[in-house]
Amino acid sequence: MLLCDIGNSYFHFFYKGRIWREESNGLTKKNKDFTIYYISVNARNEKKLLESHSNCLNIEKFVKLDTIYQGLGIDRKVACLSIRNGVIVDSGSAITIDIMQEGIHLGGYILPGIESYRRLFANIETLKMEFNLDVSLNSLPQNTKDAVSYGCLKSIILTIQDVSKDNYIYFTGGDGKFLSRFFHNSIYDNTLIFKGMTKIVNENHILKVR
Amino acid sequence: MLLCDIGNSYFHFFYKGRIWREESNGLTKKNKDFTIYYISVNARNEKKLLESHSNCLNIEKFVKLDTIYQGLGIDRKVACLSIRNGVIVDSGSAITIDIMQEGIHLGGYILPGIESYRRLFANIETLKMEFNLDVSLNSLPQNTKDAVSYGCLKSIILTIQDVSKDNYIYFTGGDGKFLSRFFHNSIYDNTLIFKGMTKIVNENHILKVR
Repeated sequence: MLLCDIGNSYFHFFYKGRIWREESNGLTKKNKDFTIYYISVNARNEKKLLESHSNCLNIEKFVKLDTIYQGLGIDRKVACLSIRNGVIVDSGSAITIDIMQEGIHLGGYILPGIESYRRLFANIETLKMEFNLDVSLNSLPQNTKDAVSYGCLKSIILTIQDVSKDNYIYFTGGDGKFLSRFFHNSIYDNTLIFKGMTKIVNENHILKVR
Repeated sequence: MLLCDIGNSYFHFFYKGRIWREESNGLTKKNKDFTIYYISVNARNEKKLLESHSNCLNIEKFVKLDTIYQGLGIDRKVACLSIRNGVIVDSGSAITIDIMQEGIHLGGYILPGIESYRRLFANIETLKMEFNLDVSLNSLPQNTKDAVSYGCLKSIILTIQDVSKDNYIYFTGGDGKFLSRFFHNSIYDNTLIFKGMTKIVNENHILKVR
């Protein structure tokens, strides 16, 4: 089963346990015998895939998440469907945090991504300096570089702790591995969204030949 | 005693309990009989004051804060000197948090200001929407507007709670009043920096006539 997660910057493909990333301007041609099961948050990039590949199926209409959240992105929905209980943290240019309980989505919220914090501080004249992501979070910062890094990391970590309590926290996305190490009850899994997609394809019996 | 806090955008003046703000391009002429005791974080704006007013005294050299923090801004130092124990939160374009214990500065850290969070999310295509600063912080958000507002406020509040414990928290700056209402142990005081300046002028006997 060949899967594709179409984002704003990249296409992420998944095939037989292997993940790879392609840029929107450097999409390689896939064998047309393979149906590309995909989801997309970016209409322009979706068009690029469809123009170059005839055998594609958008599985969005099969995605059924029990939630009252208005406007939840398809990528967040699919990641949520990969677990029954716990918290999902997708850490990219923004960090989305979603809470699942017995297969029901209880809500979620959004923080800036680590890179966004860094760029934000870089725009303030007196704070224009690199981050120190190795800053100690157990003692108070004693210089500006540590002060902005501590502020960024501590605010992300404390809000995730606040909603997760002792539940499992599933980290995914670019900074997922890094953030996961601040939590004892964490699991880093960069295939989360593809686990969700696989489940949707299987449960809805939409798998074509191959 | 006429006091002036020179910032990056504005001049804040203080005289007999009254505070007012002047823009760097609209500085009004003060009576030259009054010495303007000032601190400054912006060399260009300091020059503007000195070019138009002959009777000024920069009190920075009298500011002695017991700290090992490298590069603490003069405005933060002065605000810290206004209290002996507690946490000072100055909430402007950035939010600075400083911890004082028995007159000693234990350290501090920096978060983006509320407006910076808002602008940051406004730059992400799918999150381009106004904040809802009345969002409930006791239940999980159920739409994107609440999700970004909750993320911003919760992360600021939890990090301040984390360092303040049961100590008093002194809020100052543009969003100080708003943020102070999330804490039972809070005091909003927009004259904090001028209290520190008054103390420095008095303790160092540098008050000239008037």
